[in-house]
Amino acid sequence: MSDNALEKVPTGINGFDPIALGGLPRGRCTLVTGSTGTGKTLFAMEYLARGLAEYGQPGVFVTFEESPADLRRNASSLGFPVEQWEREGRWTFLDASFESTQETLTAGHYNYAALVSRIGNAVRATNAARVCIDSIGAILARYPNVTSVRTELFRFVTHLKELGVTSVVTAERLREYDGVSHLGVEEFVLDNVVILRNVLQGERRRRTVEIVKFRGAPHRTGEWLFTIDPVEGMVIIPLAFLR
Amino acid sequence: MSDNALEKVPTGINGFDPIALGGLPRGRCTLVTGSTGTGKTLFAMEYLARGLAEYGQPGVFVTFEESPADLRRNASSLGFPVEQWEREGRWTFLDASFESTQETLTAGHYNYAALVSRIGNAVRATNAARVCIDSIGAILARYPNVTSVRTELFRFVTHLKELGVTSVVTAERLREYDGVSHLGVEEFVLDNVVILRNVLQGERRRRTVEIVKFRGAPHRTGEWLFTIDPVEGMVIIPLAFLR
Amino acid sequence: MSDNALEKVPTGINGFDPIALGGLPRGRCTLVTGSTGTGKTLFAMEYLARGLAEYGQPGVFVTFEESPADLRRNASSLGFPVEQWEREGRWTFLDASFESTQETLTAGHYNYAALVSRIGNAVRATNAARVCIDSIGAILARYPNVTSVRTELFRFVTHLKELGVTSVVTAERLREYDGVSHLGVEEFVLDNVVILRNVLQGERRRRTVEIVKFRGAPHRTGEWLFTIDPVEGMVIIPLAFLR
Amino acid sequence: MSDNALEKVPTGINGFDPIALGGLPRGRCTLVTGSTGTGKTLFAMEYLARGLAEYGQPGVFVTFEESPADLRRNASSLGFPVEQWEREGRWTFLDASFESTQETLTAGHYNYAALVSRIGNAVRATNAARVCIDSIGAILARYPNVTSVRTELFRFVTHLKELGVTSVVTAERLREYDGVSHLGVEEFVLDNVVILRNVLQGERRRRTVEIVKFRGAPHRTGEWLFTIDPVEGMVIIPLAFLR
Amino acid sequence: MSDNALEKVPTGINGFDPIALGGLPRGRCTLVTGSTGTGKTLFAMEYLARGLAEYGQPGVFVTFEESPADLRRNASSLGFPVEQWEREGRWTFLDASFESTQETLTAGHYNYAALVSRIGNAVRATNAARVCIDSIGAILARYPNVTSVRTELFRFVTHLKELGVTSVVTAERLREYDGVSHLGVEEFVLDNVVILRNVLQGERRRRTVEIVKFRGAPHRTGEWLFTIDPVEGMVIIPLAFLR
Amino acid sequence: MSDNALEKVPTGINGFDPIALGGLPRGRCTLVTGSTGTGKTLFAMEYLARGLAEYGQPGVFVTFEESPADLRRNASSLGFPVEQWEREGRWTFLDASFESTQETLTAGHYNYAALVSRIGNAVRATNAARVCIDSIGAILARYPNVTSVRTELFRFVTHLKELGVTSVVTAERLREYDGVSHLGVEEFVLDNVVILRNVLQGERRRRTVEIVKFRGAPHRTGEWLFTIDPVEGMVIIPLAFLR
Ligand SMILES: Nc1ncnc2c1ncn2[C@@H]1O[C@H](COP(=O)(O)OP(=O)(O)O)[C@@H](O)[C@H]1O
Ligand SMILES: Nc1ncnc2c1ncn2[C@@H]1O[C@H](COP(=O)(O)OP(=O)(O)O)[C@@H](O)[C@H]1O
Ligand SMILES: Nc1ncnc2c1ncn2[C@@H]1O[C@H](COP(=O)(O)OP(=O)(O)O)[C@@H](O)[C@H]1O
Ligand SMILES: Nc1ncnc2c1ncn2[C@@H]1O[C@H](COP(=O)(O)OP(=O)(O)O)[C@@H](O)[C@H]1O
Ligand SMILES: Nc1ncnc2c1ncn2[C@@H]1O[C@H](COP(=O)(O)OP(=O)(O)O)[C@@H](O)[C@H]1O
Ligand SMILES: Nc1ncnc2c1ncn2[C@@H]1O[C@H](COP(=O)(O)OP(=O)(O)O)[C@@H](O)[C@H]1O
Ligand SMILES: [Mg+2]
Ligand SMILES: [Mg+2]
Ligand SMILES: [Mg+2]
Ligand SMILES: [Mg+2]
Ligand SMILES: [Mg+2]
Ligand SMILES: [Mg+2]
Repeated sequence: MSDNALEKVPTGINGFDPIALGGLPRGRCTLVTGSTGTGKTLFAMEYLARGLAEYGQPGVFVTFEESPADLRRNASSLGFPVEQWEREGRWTFLDASFESTQETLTAGHYNYAALVSRIGNAVRATNAARVCIDSIGAILARYPNVTSVRTELFRFVTHLKELGVTSVVTAERLREYDGVSHLGVEEFVLDNVVILRNVLQGERRRRTVEIVKFRGAPHRTGEWLFTIDPVEGMVIIPLAFLR
Repeated sequence: MSDNALEKVPTGINGFDPIALGGLPRGRCTLVTGSTGTGKTLFAMEYLARGLAEYGQPGVFVTFEESPADLRRNASSLGFPVEQWEREGRWTFLDASFESTQETLTAGHYNYAALVSRIGNAVRATNAARVCIDSIGAILARYPNVTSVRTELFRFVTHLKELGVTSVVTAERLREYDGVSHLGVEEFVLDNVVILRNVLQGERRRRTVEIVKFRGAPHRTGEWLFTIDPVEGMVIIPLAFLR
Repeated sequence: MSDNALEKVPTGINGFDPIALGGLPRGRCTLVTGSTGTGKTLFAMEYLARGLAEYGQPGVFVTFEESPADLRRNASSLGFPVEQWEREGRWTFLDASFESTQETLTAGHYNYAALVSRIGNAVRATNAARVCIDSIGAILARYPNVTSVRTELFRFVTHLKELGVTSVVTAERLREYDGVSHLGVEEFVLDNVVILRNVLQGERRRRTVEIVKFRGAPHRTGEWLFTIDPVEGMVIIPLAFLR
Repeated sequence: MSDNALEKVPTGINGFDPIALGGLPRGRCTLVTGSTGTGKTLFAMEYLARGLAEYGQPGVFVTFEESPADLRRNASSLGFPVEQWEREGRWTFLDASFESTQETLTAGHYNYAALVSRIGNAVRATNAARVCIDSIGAILARYPNVTSVRTELFRFVTHLKELGVTSVVTAERLREYDGVSHLGVEEFVLDNVVILRNVLQGERRRRTVEIVKFRGAPHRTGEWLFTIDPVEGMVIIPLAFLR
Repeated sequence: MSDNALEKVPTGINGFDPIALGGLPRGRCTLVTGSTGTGKTLFAMEYLARGLAEYGQPGVFVTFEESPADLRRNASSLGFPVEQWEREGRWTFLDASFESTQETLTAGHYNYAALVSRIGNAVRATNAARVCIDSIGAILARYPNVTSVRTELFRFVTHLKELGVTSVVTAERLREYDGVSHLGVEEFVLDNVVILRNVLQGERRRRTVEIVKFRGAPHRTGEWLFTIDPVEGMVIIPLAFLR
Repeated sequence: MSDNALEKVPTGINGFDPIALGGLPRGRCTLVTGSTGTGKTLFAMEYLARGLAEYGQPGVFVTFEESPADLRRNASSLGFPVEQWEREGRWTFLDASFESTQETLTAGHYNYAALVSRIGNAVRATNAARVCIDSIGAILARYPNVTSVRTELFRFVTHLKELGVTSVVTAERLREYDGVSHLGVEEFVLDNVVILRNVLQGERRRRTVEIVKFRGAPHRTGEWLFTIDPVEGMVIIPLAFLR
């Protein structure tokens, strides 16, 4: 690997960075995709909170369908003093739900411009190095066809990258092993793709995380088991424990 | 788990609360989804009736396709004195079927406003802590595309949460293990997801319940066997009996 | 089970009522669904004919795609004196095929009103306790989208229930184990669902009947083998014979 | 079985009538469905030719996509003197292909009226007892949606039955074991359904015939092996030979 | 088999004619269908080239997406002096690609008339007995719906047959064992159907050819292995070598 | 194989050219298709970079969704001095993303003309022998239906071939073994098809490359294992190592 190798930003998530050979590619946008309840919001939350707690990097959390109040409580149940960080100006919740934005929804069109400029303002005000968008599915659902989704998502990601931050974008998928993303387009536009799975085996559930793609950067491949601990959050099980 | 952990509301359903590590997340909305005859209406009914019988919490039952008369009879066959509770002003049926509401159905649009305000009135009049909506599928079916379903369902759930109640919303799905919800959207919008299944094994049926997601709260995972007893209603079989 | 338990109407079909724990729920509407040749029309016919022969209950048979003449012959080949019952005013065929009704079919719309009032008249004239609609698929096929099917089917069923009769509605499905009904909507609207199957096993066919749902009433679950006998009609095989 | 049992018309096809417990239901319309090359046209042809050769019943063959010249040659290769029968006025080919009819095809609509009256004339002129329509798929393909297919097919079949003939209608399907008919509608409208299959087993093909439904009449069930012999045509293998 | 049996035209392809019991049915049109890279173009090319080299029959090759220059080179790599034959007026390439025809493509419509008359002229000028159309998929793709595809394809094939030639028409399919043709219509319209397959078994590919249908003519059934040799072209492996 | 055999252009990719029996067919266009993260961009990049490094052939890289800056860094991490080559005028990045082109996107239409002429200019200025388009999916997504995709893609490929270059076009697919390309059309239009796969086996990933089609040219068949090395890039594992 030459010196030009892409730098990585450590997530701080228990056991994830070794698999990612350092963390998420710096300055780029990573898609975290999974079906309901696989832990996407938890991943995004921990990425931001551990970035602040362990690496001192401020962050912006853009939420579409969970209220900042709910997210604050979730974070604090994991021991993260999010409210304090908010007061210190190092953490910003950006509530992008329809209700809060009062936005008029013209049929089949969504004006990213306003969202992008709100995110830009929040990033500058917070001096943020990390941004989470949870979830992009709520935006994409407003587009009438896949054609415009691809173009618009590309635009959106380009703007995120221009802000200089390393971002996590969550997106939903309906099945565990059938395709990667809901619309089959997100995965092609984004630079990096991480899949969270929660598969029924017999009557038990088995959680795994997999890095499917890092554009221009190495990473470990395959599925890795993890659990969700009420105190520790995501805990990826080191291979040594498995065999 | 810190003190900030999300509180739980016990359902009183036989054997369910231990799996839910206490019950349904307080003040939020839980999706109960399953194919035909899996027991969604029974779950909703028991959640409300046991809330009153065992915890003294009044409730509102919003029904779309079963008449209050039918539901009263079902409840009473399980030993719940619903009619008496209605007289006492502690239980309210809200008949939201098309017939009863006389509503003019403009093509592809459904005015939630009227429904939301009727539910609000019923909640206040009954001083309700619990609300059931059975089933959301009847509403969602009136939307022409998934885009508006997502936005409108989000709005509807937001209004429910503003009422301060802990609610159960039922929704249908067509297959046991393929996807979670009918439209593939409900599961992303709702905070919590419970799946009921009724699977053919050889020539017999096997009923299971599974908590797929509680946003920001722990729960036990995997499928749990249950039976439907004419006297006891849903009875989840404790693990100890299984092996 | 309390005294409030839903009453059942015995079908008289060989071996069915024990599985149904008495029969079909009184005053309600039961969906009998199955692929081609599974015996839906036979079930409907026997339900009506045995209701008259064994329980003295008059009936109305609404037919969409088989002529009354053909049905009369089928019934008489099973030993039911349908023609005599017709003369006695205790059995009425209502021919709802497009030809006979001369109805003008406006694109994508079907006027249930006329059908409903014809059924009402027939029920009153015959003093009917039982009604069969064979098959609803012929009506539903005229609707352009699933949205209106759901609303209209609900309306239709509501009207049937207002007539005070216990009815059987047949509907088609394309595959034996994939989904319950053709449009995936009938099963959610109807109170009770019975599935007839005719599955290829190796090169032989195996017929089964299963009660999937009785709203608010108990029933036995799983698939039960049956044969079709030219003299006896449907004969469900008692479990004792099976093992 | 009472005296009222539906009469059967023997097909004369080698080994088919015993399975059909006599033949095809008299005065009705039987759907013969199968994927490409399963022998639908051969079945139709033999049904008509053997009807004339063995039972002296004149017939009308309505063809949509094979020319009468081609069919004549096929028939004569099986030893049937079709050309002679045509000269004697006991066999009529009705060429219903688009070219020959010169018909103007209005978008999405097909005027059955002309076809029906041409068939009626041919039946009367030939004094036909048997009619084959090969294949209905060519007509149905002209309808824009399944809704109108169902209504129109029903009308068409009703007219065929009014002519007093016993008819065979062929239709295509795309897969061997997935669904019965191409549009999933033909099978519900027609009184009787016969499926021809040609399944790959390893690298060999295995041909079977199955009667799926005879409305109001008994028949043997399951799949029966057959071969196509250049001299004998379809030859269904008697069960005795199989085990 | 009577004297009226359909005559066959030998293809000359290594090992194919024994399976076809002589070759392709004379004066008719055979569909050769397969997924990408299965050898459709090679089959068409060899059918024409061997027809000239071994049976002295001139031919016309209609190409839609490969240029005559490319095809000439392919043929010559197999040792066929196509350029010489072209100079002798016994082989004609008809370039029907959009570029070369300069045709204005009206939305959703394709004027076969011009193509048909060009083919007719080429056939007469070359005195051709054999014609290949590679591939029909390029034409069919221009039709907006399956309805018109069926009608137009039928017309096109009828015109080909009127020219008195024995033709091969190639068409694409997406999967090896799921359905026969891309649109599910080609196989019903054409008289004869040959499938080429290229199936992954473990990590190796296995090529097979199968005759699915010859209308009114016998043929051997099932899949036959073949290889593609840079000198010999398609070589079907005789059964004797297989076991 | 005659002297007329199609010439091959070596890719220089570790172990690929032996499988391709020399390399990619000269002067033609090869489709490289695979799901997310299979290495399509890496293949394209290496094809161009090794062409310059090992064979002295200048190249043009047309990128739609990765920025030239990102690609430069990826290339340099593999040890390719792309920036130097750019300065020497032997490598050109053509940024065809929507942002950079400022193009007005008329609904459902994309003007290839501009793109084609930009590519032509770049090829002439660079004196390029090799061109990569990464990925065509970004263009095809702008077309409203498959019909126009096929026609337009054919036009585009024809223009590429007229430039005299040997090109690689990448395209996405959603599943590993289901179909070849995303729209099911690319594979039919392009002369050559290479598939990259990344399949989950148990919890590990297994990368393979397969040549599915070279029009008119031999190649080895089946899947070949490869790894992606941070220094060497793609490394196809020679068969000798496998057994
Ligand atoms: N604070 C918490 N304590 C314990 N478990 C939690 C907590 N937050 C989330 N979980 C667990 O993680 C699961 C997934 O949560 P979430 O990140 O919301 O999923 P997604 O966003 O993918 O739908 C929940 O179902 C729950 O079991
Ligand atoms: N009161 C009751 N007594 C006995 N069994 C019941 C009773 N109510 C419901 N059941 C059983 O529960 C099943 C599911 O009922 P229901 O809750 O209506 O399902 P869903 O709403 O999911 O369609 C019924 O088919 C029946 O077997
Ligand atoms: N009168 C009868 N005698 C014998 N068998 C019958 C009779 N009526 C129906 N059957 C058998 O029952 C099968 C199913 O008939 P039907 O009720 O018409 O099915 P469906 O309405 O589900 O299409 C027929 O295929 C036939 O085998
Ligand atoms: N006259 C014949 N001689 C020998 N085999 C025949 C003859 N006619 C048909 N066949 C065989 O029967 C198969 C099916 O023919 P056909 O009835 O045209 O099928 P379908 O109408 O279902 O497409 C043909 O592929 C051929 O193998
Ligand atoms: N001249 C040739 N020499 C060697 N192999 C060839 C030649 N022509 C074709 N092939 C082989 O045949 C395969 C299929 O070619 P082709 O007929 O173009 O397929 P299709 O038209 O079905 O897409 C190619 O992938 C190649 O492996
Ligand atoms: N420079 C590099 N160093 C190490 N690994 C790389 C490098 N570039 C790509 N990879 C690996 O190759 C995989 C596929 O990359 P890419 O070519 O972008 O895939 P695709 O274009 O098919 O989506 C990445 O997930 C990464 O694992
Ligand atoms: Mg989430
Ligand atoms: Mg219910
Ligand atoms: Mg029926
Ligand atoms: Mg045929
Ligand atoms: Mg080809
Ligand atoms: Mg790429």
